[in-house]
Amino acid sequence: MEREFPATSSSPTALFFLFAACLLLSLPGPHVVADGHLRLLAPSKPDPSDAAATARWLVAQNSWGVVRHAVSFSDGLPGEGYGIPYFYLTTLDPTAVDALADERASFTVTDIPLGSCGETDPQSPTCAKLTLTGKLKLVDGNSTEGKFALAALFAKHAQMKDWPKKHKFQIFKLDIRHVFLIDWFGGAKTPTVEQYLNPAVNKLS
Amino acid sequence: MEREFPATSSSPTALFFLFAACLLLSLPGPHVVADGHLRLLAPSKPDPSDAAATARWLVAQNSWGVVRHAVSFSDGLPGEGYGIPYFYLTTLDPTAVDALADERASFTVTDIPLGSCGETDPQSPTCAKLTLTGKLKLVDGNSTEGKFALAALFAKHAQMKDWPKKHKFQIFKLDIRHVFLIDWFGGAKTPTVEQYLNPAVNKLS
Repeated sequence: MEREFPATSSSPTALFFLFAACLLLSLPGPHVVADGHLRLLAPSKPDPSDAAATARWLVAQNSWGVVRHAVSFSDGLPGEGYGIPYFYLTTLDPTAVDALADERASFTVTDIPLGSCGETDPQSPTCAKLTLTGKLKLVDGNSTEGKFALAALFAKHAQMKDWPKKHKFQIFKLDIRHVFLIDWFGGAKTPTVEQYLNPAVNKLS
Repeated sequence: MEREFPATSSSPTALFFLFAACLLLSLPGPHVVADGHLRLLAPSKPDPSDAAATARWLVAQNSWGVVRHAVSFSDGLPGEGYGIPYFYLTTLDPTAVDALADERASFTVTDIPLGSCGETDPQSPTCAKLTLTGKLKLVDGNSTEGKFALAALFAKHAQMKDWPKKHKFQIFKLDIRHVFLIDWFGGAKTPTVEQYLNPAVNKLS
């Protein structure tokens, strides 16, 4: 049996409610495509008391970050991130050149472009900021990890599939050595890499 | 003499146009508060052929960038930026600590959080990315430059006025030594610091 909907009406009252609904829909919410890029409905931001989970959320939700220059990245299939940022870089850009010359790197993401800071100043401690420090390493595209990384990158960055073959893009990953998070008042948090990579285990222990 | 406006009407037709106008207003545009922060109506993004103007536009329009960590900044009063990023930092956060230990720094902004990349991948060359490299220097708050910097910072970051006095925020500036911009296909652009600081002169010459 089909569900019955109220009869449509073009009365001024109905149009007023349509207008009000339209206004409400235009307000920002957690699903808003804040920077114009497609983003899945985000699970809500973890509680600030759980630093490892907040750090993982920032990496899972963002699609780009800064390794001295702004770059796209992915840590897994949507909703199935593993916390390790993978990159698709060409030596025509400086990030790959820098990494091949000196693999030491830091990688920064924040929840500002996700829209979850609201009107709070970007530098406020309650706008979460994560910097992962480590080594930017080349990943063999034919390895199991390389295949996973490429699937992860293409799942979140469909346009990468069409990037020019002649630019010889290669997969890199950040081998994380240090986790630095500001997500609340009271100073930075530095969960261990193990806690960052296993936030659920961390929470249970 | 007061200007006459058309008589208001609550007819269904008028409400339909109100609804249509509301829909149009909810579409993204250069004035959209893409990341939830107040932003003045932006002059449109300069033509990619004018690298210095594009770089200045990115610095004038953004309210935060990455100096290894994400920080707020300002280059002047809204619409009157001079291109030099000023910061309001406390040694409770690492950016100031790092700067006082080693003033070498790079500062990255992009047009991704401004919403002007649309659905283009963040790493696409047409999403503009600017990295200014230089030295992060303390600015005397009592100097003319210090007073200008504080006015510039407070104009774009009103909440800074209420940040805790006991945190001893200090003004820093990036003394720019190198400008690196990607804003189109065909490789990076490196306008000189003089061209960056005087984009109009550069354009005329």
